[in-house]
Amino acid sequence: MERKLPTRLLLEEKELPRSWYNINAIMKDKHEPMLNPKTLKPCTEEELSEVFCSELVKQELNMTDEYIPIPDEVMDFYKMVRPAPLIRAYCLEKVLGTPAEIYYKFEGNNTSGSHKLNSAIAQAYYAKKQGLTTLTTETGAGQWGTALSMACAYYGMDLTVYMVKCSAEQKPFRRAVMRTYDANVIPSPSTTTEAGRKILAEYPDTVGSLGCAISEAIETAKSKENCKYVLGSVLDYVVLHQSIIGLETKIALEKYGVEPDVLISCVGGGSNFGGFIAPFLKDKINGTKNYKIIGVEPESCPSLTRGRYAYDYGDTGKTTPLMKMYTLGNGFMPVSSHSGGLRYHGLNSALSKLYHDGYFEAVTVKQTEIFDAAVKFAKSEGILPAPESSHSIKVAIDEALKCKQTGEKKKIVFCLTGTGYFDLKAYTAFKDNEMQDYTPTEEDLAKGFATIPDIPQNRK
Amino acid sequence: MERKLPTRLLLEEKELPRSWYNINAIMKDKHEPMLNPKTLKPCTEEELSEVFCSELVKQELNMTDEYIPIPDEVMDFYKMVRPAPLIRAYCLEKVLGTPAEIYYKFEGNNTSGSHKLNSAIAQAYYAKKQGLTTLTTETGAGQWGTALSMACAYYGMDLTVYMVKCSAEQKPFRRAVMRTYDANVIPSPSTTTEAGRKILAEYPDTVGSLGCAISEAIETAKSKENCKYVLGSVLDYVVLHQSIIGLETKIALEKYGVEPDVLISCVGGGSNFGGFIAPFLKDKINGTKNYKIIGVEPESCPSLTRGRYAYDYGDTGKTTPLMKMYTLGNGFMPVSSHSGGLRYHGLNSALSKLYHDGYFEAVTVKQTEIFDAAVKFAKSEGILPAPESSHSIKVAIDEALKCKQTGEKKKIVFCLTGTGYFDLKAYTAFKDNEMQDYTPTEEDLAKGFATIPDIPQNRK
Repeated sequence: MERKLPTRLLLEEKELPRSWYNINAIMKDKHEPMLNPKTLKPCTEEELSEVFCSELVKQELNMTDEYIPIPDEVMDFYKMVRPAPLIRAYCLEKVLGTPAEIYYKFEGNNTSGSHKLNSAIAQAYYAKKQGLTTLTTETGAGQWGTALSMACAYYGMDLTVYMVKCSAEQKPFRRAVMRTYDANVIPSPSTTTEAGRKILAEYPDTVGSLGCAISEAIETAKSKENCKYVLGSVLDYVVLHQSIIGLETKIALEKYGVEPDVLISCVGGGSNFGGFIAPFLKDKINGTKNYKIIGVEPESCPSLTRGRYAYDYGDTGKTTPLMKMYTLGNGFMPVSSHSGGLRYHGLNSALSKLYHDGYFEAVTVKQTEIFDAAVKFAKSEGILPAPESSHSIKVAIDEALKCKQTGEKKKIVFCLTGTGYFDLKAYTAFKDNEMQDYTPTEEDLAKGFATIPDIPQNRK
Repeated sequence: MERKLPTRLLLEEKELPRSWYNINAIMKDKHEPMLNPKTLKPCTEEELSEVFCSELVKQELNMTDEYIPIPDEVMDFYKMVRPAPLIRAYCLEKVLGTPAEIYYKFEGNNTSGSHKLNSAIAQAYYAKKQGLTTLTTETGAGQWGTALSMACAYYGMDLTVYMVKCSAEQKPFRRAVMRTYDANVIPSPSTTTEAGRKILAEYPDTVGSLGCAISEAIETAKSKENCKYVLGSVLDYVVLHQSIIGLETKIALEKYGVEPDVLISCVGGGSNFGGFIAPFLKDKINGTKNYKIIGVEPESCPSLTRGRYAYDYGDTGKTTPLMKMYTLGNGFMPVSSHSGGLRYHGLNSALSKLYHDGYFEAVTVKQTEIFDAAVKFAKSEGILPAPESSHSIKVAIDEALKCKQTGEKKKIVFCLTGTGYFDLKAYTAFKDNEMQDYTPTEEDLAKGFATIPDIPQNRK
């Protein structure tokens, strides 16, 4: 096969982006603001700063600056692990026999194993700069917790991580790597917080959820000195930091003369998806490009495809501000799946608005399908992918096979968010045919929807 | 701090080496040949081809060609995962407060987690080309077995892996990743072979060793149709394939104007070490450069620093040809350590000869010391290293701290062979202060030495 392009579309250090990209600045219709659940008025900077680091709150509320400079101290870290490779999947294309060109941006080539490090290092930096000594957070699959553990160790900060119980049990080595970086890891729900004890009393056998873990982390942050809560997804400032993914991808594609047709990534809280598509959205909003953009979610937790667009809490304990988003309801209890990073009831507000306005589409895939795609990918491209990331692989393969039917030479670009090094129990289950699929029933959904708050804004 | 160089010393695809580098071609005094243990005469190409792939035997015996072209089909795979990053350890330098410059070549950025893939993909390719359908091998830490599993899956070949029992128990997920790539993984010693049954009868509680596993893999290869045995270290052809590490390192250092003073890597069977230093040895043998080259071995398995230079078998079952090498004796039973990849009684013949002739030095380090260095590295450089690789980190840090004393601005380059993703039981033991060091007694060594064959060549 003739190869016009190298397999790895490299960028030199001097070609790296020096600013993050803020999609809020270019959205014609802004998303509706976070509300204080007590007053039902937009949250002020002051209110948010009680829980979050000041600089991150400023970024969260920034609806005007398209580019936000990356601090030098954060760039110094980025330069160790970035640019993340952008790889032409020549071998996968050959196995599929497709005329399509497939490219993937691999964010798992760092010890945290995923894109989460992009935001973790920024958040730990701002916290340190503000004079804080301790952070708390939650983690689902463990990717965010690992990333933040690394970031805190790098800046010499203390960290407590509430880890969703089913993930802590499925992934003992995730906990071990966080401990290596000195983090205090607590399976959630736990008895260390009011919120945890309450959930345990109501659902003693619960395997936990991101929503529960968030409640615990926030409660702990509020109870300590010089301590704030940080989180690895859902908020606009996290999507902002993750825009490094999309920026690097776009710069490299332009450098090598590749015009993408289809952009694909998995969607949980939305941070990798939003970061990946951020700079491409500009062209789409301007009307200069008509990319097909696909968000992929698990059939077991379908917030976009089966959720409601409403104001909801970010956590099960109803302690966060209210956010207008696609949601299955803060009380929706997703089944234990192997894609812990996608087991979240809602989606970032900006992305929810963009979805509502038709800027991208969403599809769901089954767990066994994504592992099938993952193994195919691992054998041809040599990378063992995380289950979350394999959602994108599955849909990229589907798109490439459509091209095989039509003969189209589409250029498909997807984000491969992480490695499967910590998901080997899942791979073993798949290999042994012990993996289940799960589709929530209408009744399951109704139970979740019943927990969406009944406020005037939701009655419109 | 002013930074003249980028953090990552990148190479473009077109700058990649297209040939491997054969140190045998440039050694003034060649190493003594492998002997047939029955005749005590040099092994012929024909004899070796009974066990090994033909093309690999040719490479093994090639003492004349300095450069051996890398087949296009192997380059296609290399291009997905290479060049491996060469990184300036700015953050570690800062933490140490050293005037030295530290660089590391990171070979762990692929799913196999180590440099082993460099040779695995070549070996699987040559086997496929020869029309074989099945391969057998052994694995210690699991890195080689994983790499070969990936390579066999890529080329669609069957594979049976004998995995040293203590590693199989310490690292269940290593086995899982090999199974994901369809390999048949058997803990060794096993009851599936004559050799395994014999060892089990003699030492029922043995945790296994590379030597035992090799015997089992060779026996199985001989008993199957279209099946050969391959191995991931010790032999000259493996060092040849691993020269891609040193070649890339040298090209990148030259591109960015860095003249190294000290070169460091860990030594087990010798493949990463030999491959890393190969192209630098040329300058050293020619006398044009006087690099300080250090091989680092575990105190628990000190074949260079406390071994004998003699003809010995490569395996405990005494089924391999005899090789002239530094050895602790084929019957030396190293204690169970967390650096399974360095638990081998001998060292590649070419490297043994070079060591004997004074071209490099060797040092030993303790297990707890290397984990201490590993954690320091992980916190500053963001990479969780494999225990084997951490031997190099420990010595690189020592060298950098000497520079802090003397004020010298030495340029220290080491090979970081792999990630610690599959070593988290070890990290947990270290974190919990449950890790032991072990130094073999003179009696332990004497027991091993007693198993070195008493042949005329060893009586000189």
